[in-house]
Amino acid sequence: MVITMLEHVDLQRKMTKVEYRMDTDVLKRELALLQHTLKDKGLPVIVLFEGWGAAGKGSLISDMILTLDPRSYKVFSTVSPTAEERRRPWLWRHWCRIPERGRIAVFDRSWYPETSIERIEGNLSEAQAKRRLESVNRFERQLTDDGYLVIKFFLHISQKEQKKRLKKLSESKETQWRATRQDWERNEKYEEYYKVFDEMLEATDTECAPWHLIGCTDRRSALSEVYHIMVDSIRQALAEGEERKAAAPKQDGKIDPGPFSLVKIPSLREVSLDKTAPENYKELLKEKQEHLRAIHNRLYLQKVPVVIVYEGWDAAGKGGNIKRLAAALDPRGYEVVPIAAPTPTELSHHYLWRFWEGVPKDGHVAIFDRSWYGRLMVERIEGFCTPEEWHRAYREINEFEKELFDRGAILLKFWIHIDKDEQLRRFNDRENTPEKRWKITDEDWRNREKWDQYEIAVDDMLRYTSTDFAPWTIVESQDKKLARLKTLDTVIAAAENRL
Amino acid sequence: MVITMLEHVDLQRKMTKVEYRMDTDVLKRELALLQHTLKDKGLPVIVLFEGWGAAGKGSLISDMILTLDPRSYKVFSTVSPTAEERRRPWLWRHWCRIPERGRIAVFDRSWYPETSIERIEGNLSEAQAKRRLESVNRFERQLTDDGYLVIKFFLHISQKEQKKRLKKLSESKETQWRATRQDWERNEKYEEYYKVFDEMLEATDTECAPWHLIGCTDRRSALSEVYHIMVDSIRQALAEGEERKAAAPKQDGKIDPGPFSLVKIPSLREVSLDKTAPENYKELLKEKQEHLRAIHNRLYLQKVPVVIVYEGWDAAGKGGNIKRLAAALDPRGYEVVPIAAPTPTELSHHYLWRFWEGVPKDGHVAIFDRSWYGRLMVERIEGFCTPEEWHRAYREINEFEKELFDRGAILLKFWIHIDKDEQLRRFNDRENTPEKRWKITDEDWRNREKWDQYEIAVDDMLRYTSTDFAPWTIVESQDKKLARLKTLDTVIAAAENRL
Repeated sequence: MVITMLEHVDLQRKMTKVEYRMDTDVLKRELALLQHTLKDKGLPVIVLFEGWGAAGKGSLISDMILTLDPRSYKVFSTVSPTAEERRRPWLWRHWCRIPERGRIAVFDRSWYPETSIERIEGNLSEAQAKRRLESVNRFERQLTDDGYLVIKFFLHISQKEQKKRLKKLSESKETQWRATRQDWERNEKYEEYYKVFDEMLEATDTECAPWHLIGCTDRRSALSEVYHIMVDSIRQALAEGEERKAAAPKQDGKIDPGPFSLVKIPSLREVSLDKTAPENYKELLKEKQEHLRAIHNRLYLQKVPVVIVYEGWDAAGKGGNIKRLAAALDPRGYEVVPIAAPTPTELSHHYLWRFWEGVPKDGHVAIFDRSWYGRLMVERIEGFCTPEEWHRAYREINEFEKELFDRGAILLKFWIHIDKDEQLRRFNDRENTPEKRWKITDEDWRNREKWDQYEIAVDDMLRYTSTDFAPWTIVESQDKKLARLKTLDTVIAAAENRL
Repeated sequence: MVITMLEHVDLQRKMTKVEYRMDTDVLKRELALLQHTLKDKGLPVIVLFEGWGAAGKGSLISDMILTLDPRSYKVFSTVSPTAEERRRPWLWRHWCRIPERGRIAVFDRSWYPETSIERIEGNLSEAQAKRRLESVNRFERQLTDDGYLVIKFFLHISQKEQKKRLKKLSESKETQWRATRQDWERNEKYEEYYKVFDEMLEATDTECAPWHLIGCTDRRSALSEVYHIMVDSIRQALAEGEERKAAAPKQDGKIDPGPFSLVKIPSLREVSLDKTAPENYKELLKEKQEHLRAIHNRLYLQKVPVVIVYEGWDAAGKGGNIKRLAAALDPRGYEVVPIAAPTPTELSHHYLWRFWEGVPKDGHVAIFDRSWYGRLMVERIEGFCTPEEWHRAYREINEFEKELFDRGAILLKFWIHIDKDEQLRRFNDRENTPEKRWKITDEDWRNREKWDQYEIAVDDMLRYTSTDFAPWTIVESQDKKLARLKTLDTVIAAAENRL
């Protein structure tokens, strides 16, 4: 017989009051000091508590946070997703709650019930459950790669012990509401849950975010273990952070797009920019917009989310292109999300955090005017992230888009393309036309000087993030009208294909 | 007979295609340019559309925004509040959506259905409706006082016209889902809605945010009117902004706490700081914490929201006091909200915006470690806002707290008090104790130099914002233990009084 993870947990351990004091007094002081250090060093910490009902999650959390300054942590109590949350990818609400650097987020239950309990109580198929467990591993890996510390506790008690506790809760008028019918039902089906929990633990016990299984028969010994693990983990993470800082930053890396099927795409130099729009452009545009309007209606009714990314050279005609596309959509069902330089709050989170926040609801269209691909272009070229970080980002981005795709989203990514001469013509035109002058800045000229570097970066980006579920389309925009027709066509084709 | 606002609307007006073109071509170009100016000048604009079903809101909005750069506006489509939104004051979700300076928020329905349609379809009493209309006027006044431009459109059609349009929608398969049973029912009860709309318009047609009633029988003339009003309003707001900038900023003002009953409160100098905690402090603390723990449970079950504000001198013992209070609460039901200097995003909104975001759900406790009262202290003294702004803030803050109170919240505000000598002792102690040194900064010493100025500001604040629904409590913290008992006592008393 295979020995499961839960079987290894010592449920007999006990501690006297004196032992507990001797053991934890120093630890508590240390933890109190560590929270200031982690604040100074900008270490973001996620502490999550999962486990059996009545195992003592609430009281353990209450006790543990007593040692902390209430200003430095936030407790999230995760319940079933709200109707609003259900309209987005399941990881969405969890991504939105990750802490800023230097802060602690304590989760009283987290993303795990949706990979385990829902298998029994919801209508989560085995295949879905497996996919969610993989999503969780990717999620936690992305966080820890970015310097997050993720401490995971599973609080274990036996079926008998659980029953005893539920009984005790039921006996007092003050506490009886805490032992619900659901709790009793779960206690009866303990074996079934055991199996599901064990599989969950096994599947998500990763090197970057290992599980800590805590025997909770005795409250004091459980608390003591929690303190030990908290202090050790934070101390180690701080030390590793220092080491990393002390070491010379790696100047190279290898692009790894992750285990996804890539679609072949030409390099920018191979793209011909000679074609122009047909003479009946106006008619065609109107026709296609009408067509898209009808489709948008159907996408809305069928609750298909759509994510459209616009990237491209400065002055390539992104704005006008977006405008023509948006004009075909019902304003109640789409949103244009302009992406500027990150704010300080955004900078103090994982770089994908702000994009997760902008993920559209089912049935809605989100048009990103610039996007997470900044990581692979401006951030790479200007050194706003380390080489290690941008090398890692190809895979992270593909994984991010995979989450959206798994939710049922249509993903389209447009590279709005012109050549270097055309850009110069447009820049000059902007300089010389009063009502266009706001469109051109010194930065545009500076970026232009780095055209060749950008070309390399864009080719890499197109090549390694054009997956079969989220392909890039190069949109020839030397003639803006042609470009507008092409984006409309692409959106229509993708939507019809789905519907 | 009284002539109502809606009766004034011309429903006969018509425009030919040529007239429309001649009228609006220039306007559209102007609007396109104005959006860049308002972005540069940081003018935040709210455009809201209310009116009859099938009056053409959707298509008018679609058309109007075609002239705008999709990156500069955002369309919000307001539907019934979600379950999550219902757990907070009704204005909460609307406050959260106000635009940043320089951006346009277009509302396809806004806060008005909750003051009108709900009177007929929901269970909103006349008294509640009246209170909501007052809330709306305060809301819009606070926004416009802060430089927001609020443009309000009401789209009017006759009962007959509405019926005709619903019929037409029902005839096509593509559009029949848009004429719902509810729409038909509303058409039948047109008279009833008419009365309610008219009262709503009458009650909220204020100088700072007047209504624009648009006859929508003819689409072109309606659109033309919308363009005229948009352009005129934005142009005027920009001009007024320039004027205000050119004029010398007013260096004085008058404190106006608004039409609220104030509770008498001693000035800081009158407060005696001699008392110390009883010998059995430890026991008492534990006892009171136990007591509060039980009460918190009941507050949670009865869904009473609680807002607790901590303000006080540096080193007065706020942190430790909060910790003792929080220790008595179930971590799943409270949150400590530390308020630091505003982020750039926060600065580019109304100053109350970020606090509205932190408003607790029903049944939850929010403990603010510093708060909106920064406006009346540090911002006043350091000149982070104009004298006009902080003078206005007394009333705005009372109004804000009134909204929370009307929602059923318990509001408690603590001024944690010590004298100047005690502060010096604690500062020195912090300097001399290694593990406390992180607590003391140069800024603390600089603030200390302004003790006398702060004393005046605090006295003003206590005097003019201690309302009967949100009173201040001065907490003598010369002896921190005494202070801890007092805050616990105050919270317990207020909660018991409510329960």
